Amino acid sequence: MQSLPKSIQKAIEALSDLPGIGSRSAERLVFALLKNDMQLEEKIAEALVNLKKNLGECDTCHHYCEHKPDEPVICPICSDFSRDTKTLCVVEEPTDLIAIERTHEYKGCYHVLHGVLSPLNKIGPDQIRITSLINRVETTDESFDEIILALSGNIESDATALYITEQLQKIFDGKITRLARGIPTGGDLDYLDVGTLSRAMLDRRSL
Amino acid sequence: MQSLPKSIQKAIEALSDLPGIGSRSAERLVFALLKNDMQLEEKIAEALVNLKKNLGECDTCHHYCEHKPDEPVICPICSDFSRDTKTLCVVEEPTDLIAIERTHEYKGCYHVLHGVLSPLNKIGPDQIRITSLINRVETTDESFDEIILALSGNIESDATALYITEQLQKIFDGKITRLARGIPTGGDLDYLDVGTLSRAMLDRRSL
Repeated sequence: MQSLPKSIQKAIEALSDLPGIGSRSAERLVFALLKNDMQLEEKIAEALVNLKKNLGECDTCHHYCEHKPDEPVICPICSDFSRDTKTLCVVEEPTDLIAIERTHEYKGCYHVLHGVLSPLNKIGPDQIRITSLINRVETTDESFDEIILALSGNIESDATALYITEQLQKIFDGKITRLARGIPTGGDLDYLDVGTLSRAMLDRRSL
Repeated sequence: MQSLPKSIQKAIEALSDLPGIGSRSAERLVFALLKNDMQLEEKIAEALVNLKKNLGECDTCHHYCEHKPDEPVICPICSDFSRDTKTLCVVEEPTDLIAIERTHEYKGCYHVLHGVLSPLNKIGPDQIRITSLINRVETTDESFDEIILALSGNIESDATALYITEQLQKIFDGKITRLARGIPTGGDLDYLDVGTLSRAMLDRRSL
């Protein structure tokens, strides 16, 4: 790459640090930016510089939200009094919260864990927001009727859900639920893995 | 997306203006940056802000290169006296130049067009560097023996190659060549399109 100017090489290196973007994709992006006459690279740079400014985690649910310095942080969902405060939905990531909001099927509160338990990577209940969840359920003025564990379907998420359930059962006597498992909408039966299909059979519903 | 802070929304919008990055990919990238503790977003922003600073087109071949203000712009390839100045390779984009340099098969000079002729988009010989190519061949001290038109295989590139050939033939009496067409290395014969296969048959070589 001796034939490329340093500023181009640096931009390619920086962009290829992004997940899912290899050096060839980064190269394509940088040359698209060089051809772009609308100062797109400055627009992106400005947005990235401002990305984490005034951004915090909601004190209650840990969703990302804007905040002013020295003021309590409260996100639009937690401050929305029209929402059902009797139901709590626990999700792994803010993106999961957004995905659930997109369904328009859920009107309760959230709790964002920002990860799953992973002993190998030294991520325990204190590294993610599990301890905060336990405290929230224990001390909250609003007592929940139901806590939905809306975690993913993989092994680490299952282990995290199991741990949370065990901890909650000590202090919480409402319903603890998880998302339904089965055939995805539009999914072809013969392409499904054994685990999903056997779960769909076990959890069959009467019509 | 009411549930997302403005700074996150702006970053998603800016990144999804990049070619090949939709709003969902941009969302994934932004949340990866939010999780990243290494200030990757600042590194990228800095690289993008500096991307076009001190960057110009080589006065001779139009490849991107660094330059100081008020000084003639000359790229490392054009200023490399060990290269063969009798052969000129015409490419569409700087990325094509880099791809050819990667093969280590070519040691001559380059001329980067920065596009192809496209009458529908009002791109004529003056909008890309064809006029500059003609002037270069006409007035150059170094007289070329061969001009290789290393353009892509689509219709617009073919039309551009035809136009350049016609213009060059008026002023240049050396060889004008194009890249070989045929089966790509590692390609499966039965997956090839008719055009490629018939070209490979027509251009067959004796062993």
